[in-house]
Amino acid sequence: MKVNAWAATTAGQPIAFHPIERREVGPKDVLIDILWSGICHSDIHQARAEWGAALFPMVPGHEIVGRVSKVGAQVSKLKVGDFAGVGCMVDSCRECRSCKHGDEQFCDAGCAFTYNSTEMDRKTPTFGGYSAQVVVTEHFALKVPSTMDLARAAPLLCAGITTYSPLREFDVKRGDKVAVNGLGGLGHMAVKLAAAMGAEVTMLSTSASKKADAQKLGASNFELTTEKGTFKKLRNHFDLIIDTVSAQHDINALLGIVRPYGTVALVGVPPQAMPLSAFAVINGNKRFAGSNIGGIVETQEMLEFCAEKNIGADVEVIEAKDINVAYERMLKNDVRYRFVIDAKSF
Amino acid sequence: MKVNAWAATTAGQPIAFHPIERREVGPKDVLIDILWSGICHSDIHQARAEWGAALFPMVPGHEIVGRVSKVGAQVSKLKVGDFAGVGCMVDSCRECRSCKHGDEQFCDAGCAFTYNSTEMDRKTPTFGGYSAQVVVTEHFALKVPSTMDLARAAPLLCAGITTYSPLREFDVKRGDKVAVNGLGGLGHMAVKLAAAMGAEVTMLSTSASKKADAQKLGASNFELTTEKGTFKKLRNHFDLIIDTVSAQHDINALLGIVRPYGTVALVGVPPQAMPLSAFAVINGNKRFAGSNIGGIVETQEMLEFCAEKNIGADVEVIEAKDINVAYERMLKNDVRYRFVIDAKSF
Repeated sequence: MKVNAWAATTAGQPIAFHPIERREVGPKDVLIDILWSGICHSDIHQARAEWGAALFPMVPGHEIVGRVSKVGAQVSKLKVGDFAGVGCMVDSCRECRSCKHGDEQFCDAGCAFTYNSTEMDRKTPTFGGYSAQVVVTEHFALKVPSTMDLARAAPLLCAGITTYSPLREFDVKRGDKVAVNGLGGLGHMAVKLAAAMGAEVTMLSTSASKKADAQKLGASNFELTTEKGTFKKLRNHFDLIIDTVSAQHDINALLGIVRPYGTVALVGVPPQAMPLSAFAVINGNKRFAGSNIGGIVETQEMLEFCAEKNIGADVEVIEAKDINVAYERMLKNDVRYRFVIDAKSF
Repeated sequence: MKVNAWAATTAGQPIAFHPIERREVGPKDVLIDILWSGICHSDIHQARAEWGAALFPMVPGHEIVGRVSKVGAQVSKLKVGDFAGVGCMVDSCRECRSCKHGDEQFCDAGCAFTYNSTEMDRKTPTFGGYSAQVVVTEHFALKVPSTMDLARAAPLLCAGITTYSPLREFDVKRGDKVAVNGLGGLGHMAVKLAAAMGAEVTMLSTSASKKADAQKLGASNFELTTEKGTFKKLRNHFDLIIDTVSAQHDINALLGIVRPYGTVALVGVPPQAMPLSAFAVINGNKRFAGSNIGGIVETQEMLEFCAEKNIGADVEVIEAKDINVAYERMLKNDVRYRFVIDAKSF
């Protein structure tokens, strides 16, 4: 079936109208009429082929919310008219230890990502959310609670789960001291989610201008990482730091301000290796951990948590023709805090 | 009281006979007539002032086993004639969160180390195990089961607990796949302990000549880290790696061979920061952790575990006059696997 979409036709080309072909709805598939599609920073990296080999034409977008318009005969999870979401993945082997454990993102065979990837046949390219409709096997479709503000729900499919998952993995409880390093798309979700879990949230930022926003989002404290004395004052202080910074930064300093047995959980992706001092982890049995999106069951849990707590992303709604301008603004950190494309404009 | 001891009088000077003054036995103190004193690689670093400020004269040694010869009026843990040990610490504040949690090594006030440190008064220097006797407050004295081979027990007070602690912290169970990187004083203990816990142990080494020893110690597998293909073959394989290497090495490669959610636990102390790639931790939610000796309760538990499993270090017994030669041999990795000084020679 022919579907309206917006794509980069080669590396670094502007995102432009470029209809695509999607498969017909199979017995286990759902067809989703997309309503809102978030723009993730990784869309820019991939459309510009900055993360290695990339497949073109590329239709980016893995923060998708829409309405189910058709289901296959064997589908039981969703019915026509339901609101549904698609995140970073559209398939996996479903048989390996990771898949069975609910970590499809770590599938031994390599999962099928929503775009810039292939289906599990390793031939058919996948196309993402900058399009009018998407066909996905029901296992990888999320149920979106009907009470949610759908435009604000779209970024939860990537920015939401990416920050929710380490907060759960490291067992954040009421009263825990959680710091969030960096206030961007991921950081603003981390603050909201940690605060909703009852944590005492501290925003760590290089920019004093972010203080008011951080407080509005739910942070009770704000600390400038550029200020002398901040790291000394906060030594051994936090239970957990969610580190959302994708630029080069000093992870040893962050390790210094988590308590013994505390964790710095990286969800940003600095492109170059960062110097790690043995003393920074040995003094206090500290841990530096990475966290990569989350599995399907956990993503569903996150959506229900957000519905219950009335949490959505802070979004700026744009039309498809504005995608390239949005990219430029994102590169200047000029977005509070996520662009979402109105799918009517595809 | 005057006690025979061997000391470095200034940084880098040979270790030589140098009697010291120790306090009289207070109401909560025990006096231990030292029988065996292990030599840890950190003794060399500190005697040569390679780890920053150092206090001289310095009597190194924090792997101490002996017999109790006098106890204060309020001592209940030990009696005259008992075998006792002293490890890396001789006091701490005992009131902070870490102390109450049994992690005296992370005392907020800074613990009193056994040598190259001061008592909690921050004035009285501490002197280590290269001496005929030691006076220690009973909380920091360990009970050494009388069934143990005492010379082989001495290195357990540092090398033993340093490797036992992360194996427990990361919950090694029967059948777990544990790798030990580097076969030296720490590595040989890690292999013995992990094998005794029922793990399937793999030795990772740069030297094929270590294979036979690794198997004797309890490793069921041996992998050359210098060989092309080792890291590819073992991708996502281990539950835990105990990384004992103190030279610069590739921690991203080690992270590549632990399973999703697996941990690389560093107990070696490479002097320079190591490049850590974000992708190495994010792909598979992996963790890089440090581990620093262990608290007193855990050290006691380790001694009882070793007594039950008949585990001791592999040692080469020397006399005090041979300490400087032993240091030189250790710098060439020419020891299997720990020098222990016969305290009769002090």
